[in-house]
Amino acid sequence: MSLVRVNAVSTSVDGFVAGPDQDQEHPLGIGGGALHEWIFATVTGQAMIGNQGGETGIDDDLLIAASNGVGATIMGRNMFGPVRGAWGEDEWRGWWGDEPPFHHPVFVLTNYPRAPLDMEGGTTFQFVTDGPEAALALAREAAGDADIRLGGGARTIRQFIERRLVDSMHFAVVPVLLGSGERVFDATLVPRGYRCSSFVASTRVAHFTIVRT
Amino acid sequence: MSLVRVNAVSTSVDGFVAGPDQDQEHPLGIGGGALHEWIFATVTGQAMIGNQGGETGIDDDLLIAASNGVGATIMGRNMFGPVRGAWGEDEWRGWWGDEPPFHHPVFVLTNYPRAPLDMEGGTTFQFVTDGPEAALALAREAAGDADIRLGGGARTIRQFIERRLVDSMHFAVVPVLLGSGERVFDATLVPRGYRCSSFVASTRVAHFTIVRT
Repeated sequence: MSLVRVNAVSTSVDGFVAGPDQDQEHPLGIGGGALHEWIFATVTGQAMIGNQGGETGIDDDLLIAASNGVGATIMGRNMFGPVRGAWGEDEWRGWWGDEPPFHHPVFVLTNYPRAPLDMEGGTTFQFVTDGPEAALALAREAAGDADIRLGGGARTIRQFIERRLVDSMHFAVVPVLLGSGERVFDATLVPRGYRCSSFVASTRVAHFTIVRT
Repeated sequence: MSLVRVNAVSTSVDGFVAGPDQDQEHPLGIGGGALHEWIFATVTGQAMIGNQGGETGIDDDLLIAASNGVGATIMGRNMFGPVRGAWGEDEWRGWWGDEPPFHHPVFVLTNYPRAPLDMEGGTTFQFVTDGPEAALALAREAAGDADIRLGGGARTIRQFIERRLVDSMHFAVVPVLLGSGERVFDATLVPRGYRCSSFVASTRVAHFTIVRT
């Protein structure tokens, strides 16, 4: 059976995966951009923004592994965009332009119904209002034998941990102190039935993998 | 001027520096012992328990640095022992036996007055009921030109961060998921005026240093 996995979620040393006050100018919240600097140092990260060059090594290897073998993605609404409440004129089509980097079906958890969006390059955004289990059922059907990547944000990952729906999680802990924002492991979460299974570090970032026991 | 520093505070990947339910059998709370396994893999850690052998390298270097140049230690009452409330018959003399490994004055923050304890090897335990600033003034006087080490636990470190009384902090993030316990960076703490200044990792543990800006 295909795995449900979290990959390359950048986390500050004080546990935040995004800064506070997300808006259109701050997709990762205030200060959250610093969490992703290690990504843009790699070949894979440079390629994401249309550049050549960058570093190979552990960080790059893990970014390549993060997107390999993924047939569907699930994300929370705030990872999809800064719009809150009803979708209104449906103008927001994601942070990623006309051709998002997914190239497979993406299921967006939201409380507000919206018609699917077909983007260029094989990405579709489908909006799921029935909760994590419903999104996972749709993602499993779409992914076939491939894995399902759980994108984020913090609350979405927490919902999947609470329900024990995620098989493995890779967090990249970076040398940044954010001070406030969104935590996966917050005061409300008790991650029952999970353990830390591996650790490896580059000179920039510490990679921890947590698996379901 | 001497520095106030936190060194080698082992932290789980989900942010806990101790497990829950500390008692005499569980000085670091339930499951908290796993936080310190990396220490006992080193030469310094083996020497602490009277053994020879162990590994040299980054982890050992940082443990040596942790105790070098320290002239006084400040700790919270729960780091000193599992006793709660009034001290009673004064039987509890710390977790460390007749000759504790400090060899300098140790100031224990507590709400309950108690006469000082003179231990073997130059360690004295003095009990301070007037709060962090008072403990720091006493520690500065005792340490002279040497540094002051802030031992823990979580709440004590938090009190010093909130008051901006600590100059640098070294956290060792280990590949352990604790799930519950005591966090330094909890939902109440906003670490204003601090930043993460360095990162280095061994194969066992990721070391992050946070400094006052």
